[in-house]
Amino acid sequence: ETCIASRYGYSGGRTASGERMNPNVMTAAHRARPFGSHVTVTSHSTGRSVTVRINDRGPFVKGRCIDLSTGAARELGMAGTTTVSLR
Amino acid sequence: ETCIASRYGYSGGRTASGERMNPNVMTAAHRARPFGSHVTVTSHSTGRSVTVRINDRGPFVKGRCIDLSTGAARELGMAGTTTVSLR
Repeated sequence: ETCIASRYGYSGGRTASGERMNPNVMTAAHRARPFGSHVTVTSHSTGRSVTVRINDRGPFVKGRCIDLSTGAARELGMAGTTTVSLR
Repeated sequence: ETCIASRYGYSGGRTASGERMNPNVMTAAHRARPFGSHVTVTSHSTGRSVTVRINDRGPFVKGRCIDLSTGAARELGMAGTTTVSLR
C-alpha cells in the first residue's frame, strides 16, 4: 500500500485504544488495522523505515493512510526541526 | 551561522511585521534580522536551500534560530507529510 503519511503528537491525551498518548514512542494511527498490530513504514523521500504499533484511529484526511507519532516521524526523517546554515 | 530551524504556519493571523500570515509563501521568523531582509537557508539533512524573506519574530525556543513558513519548510524537505509504503 503506497499513500501519504502525516505526523501528529500531543502529550497527556488518550489514543482511540485508550492509551495515554506519548509522542516519543513508535506508534501510529490507522483507520482500519487492528490495535496492537505492527506496520513497517518506508519513506519514499528518505528511504528510511520504522516499525510502528497501531494504537489510534485516523488520519481522517482524504489521501492519507497513516498518522505517525512525532518520534516515528523523526525516525523516518520527517522531523519538525532540522539543522541549517544561514547566509 | 549553523543552528536549528523549525516550521510554523497558520492562516489568517498577523506576523510581527503586520502582514497577514500566508503559510505558503517563502517567509520566516528570526529574532534579530530586519523585516524585509532575505536569508538563504540550507538544510544539512537534505542539502536543499531556500531563500526566505523575514517578516516575523521568533522562534523563542533555546537553540533554534529560524522558524520557517510551511511552504519554505517543504522546499527544504521538512514536509509535514511524505509518501510511504506500508507492509
